[in-house]
Amino acid sequence: MSAPQGVVALVGTGAVGGSIGGSLRARGLAREVRGYDPANAGAARALGLIDTASPSLEAAVRGADLVVLAAPVPVNRALLGDAVLRESLSPQAVLTDVSSTKASVVAAAAGLGPRVGRFVASHPIAGADRGGPDAARIGLLEGMTVILCPTEACDADALTRVDALWTTLGASTARMSPQHHDRVFAEVSHWPHAVAFALSASVGCGPLAEDARRYHGAGLRDTTRVGGSPPDLWAGILLDNREATLAAAQAFRAELDAIERALRDGDRPALEAALARGASWRSRLRPGPA
Amino acid sequence: MSAPQGVVALVGTGAVGGSIGGSLRARGLAREVRGYDPANAGAARALGLIDTASPSLEAAVRGADLVVLAAPVPVNRALLGDAVLRESLSPQAVLTDVSSTKASVVAAAAGLGPRVGRFVASHPIAGADRGGPDAARIGLLEGMTVILCPTEACDADALTRVDALWTTLGASTARMSPQHHDRVFAEVSHWPHAVAFALSASVGCGPLAEDARRYHGAGLRDTTRVGGSPPDLWAGILLDNREATLAAAQAFRAELDAIERALRDGDRPALEAALARGASWRSRLRPGPA
Repeated sequence: MSAPQGVVALVGTGAVGGSIGGSLRARGLAREVRGYDPANAGAARALGLIDTASPSLEAAVRGADLVVLAAPVPVNRALLGDAVLRESLSPQAVLTDVSSTKASVVAAAAGLGPRVGRFVASHPIAGADRGGPDAARIGLLEGMTVILCPTEACDADALTRVDALWTTLGASTARMSPQHHDRVFAEVSHWPHAVAFALSASVGCGPLAEDARRYHGAGLRDTTRVGGSPPDLWAGILLDNREATLAAAQAFRAELDAIERALRDGDRPALEAALARGASWRSRLRPGPA
Repeated sequence: MSAPQGVVALVGTGAVGGSIGGSLRARGLAREVRGYDPANAGAARALGLIDTASPSLEAAVRGADLVVLAAPVPVNRALLGDAVLRESLSPQAVLTDVSSTKASVVAAAAGLGPRVGRFVASHPIAGADRGGPDAARIGLLEGMTVILCPTEACDADALTRVDALWTTLGASTARMSPQHHDRVFAEVSHWPHAVAFALSASVGCGPLAEDARRYHGAGLRDTTRVGGSPPDLWAGILLDNREATLAAAQAFRAELDAIERALRDGDRPALEAALARGASWRSRLRPGPA
């Protein structure tokens, strides 16, 4: 089938939205890729990530077969309650999003009113540690996993079409409840980002920052990599998933306290045991796509 | 000059010692590479990382032109006070080590007695997140930096020869005092390792460990990578550099507290400001060798 996604409207054409647009275009999967993003659509158009920079939300959405909300989390939530979006949608259109949190987004989808069944929440486990269309990458989804959080309200054909979007871009899909998603991603992504931001700040704002810049090795580079992510984006994600993230913080602090206490006490057996708890899990983790 | 390093004795043939041996052999820089390591020398020999698995410390060191202490930190310290090592050394031999901490090792070098000037402390900023000769890699040092911590006691020719060892293996060298080294590496390596171990433990020992294994992305993989390092090795390093590491811990906790407090309070401006402190430093860090 040629151009199976028809007309696609990307609301947000930063790193992830731009990657989706560029990948759809490169594979010839869309008849037209429209982008609505006052800050980024011009650059995304110049980079060839979208066909058309739409002048308004309504212009992007009207007549689109697929609408992808790829703005920061709080904006995606607001869009789901936006009358312009709701009233511009074609009856056959399906919607998805790429937010890193899911419970609040699924709740906000009630704002679509009778169209709520057309929305299927997605979270592609693929990101960029920088923001903006310059950080977009064709093929970003290849080999990655996309979590879908369908609810009982979702139309079966909408679920099928959103699932197909991701698999035709080379990803595999998995399904879980939005609540479970948010607990899992608080642990594997949201709180680890907070840790990387904090570690970057303690090294980079301290008196040894210049030595650190010159002499750090791959360890610090990797441990802090996501600490260079856009602060505005991540403030939104962390606040949106506040409770689960604070629970993950508490579990982390218990482990950190055990390490620091053993170090302070000079207790080598306790220190080695505390380090081994992490190492036994981490050293068995499969290497994965970058 | 052929085989400029002459006969090299590696005391410890794990990941780093094995990499040095394999790299010396691959470049034809040594007339003979001996390894003494009851646990690992047989495997290192089988992997072609050394020429000879020496049956004793004395057999490895006697007649060697260069002795590299590449065992865990506490073992390297003990070796520097070991009468067998001291009494087996040729008069022209030079010694170095590859320990991740330097002040205690430099202090232990007093155990060499009249030979103290032959020892020049080194720290190659290149490691492996696994231990043992299987993790050794020819070319590990290429493009890397090696910190040298010479003292007033060091002979000029010993310093020249140890510096040349690293540069002929493709590394560049830098010099600093052992005390400054330990403060810098507490911040850029030792405490970040503790953070990665703690994060690995909180994710890997929690009720969502199986979800984490299946659904984590590159963020968690990078943030925790060094949390899979050998716990025994790292217990030794952390305890050896205890004070500076606890100071780095305190600076990290101050940043982490600010993030967590803003999150708990739902204070978006404060949260964004706390995240931006880290991001502004990290996002300007050059990409580096892996």
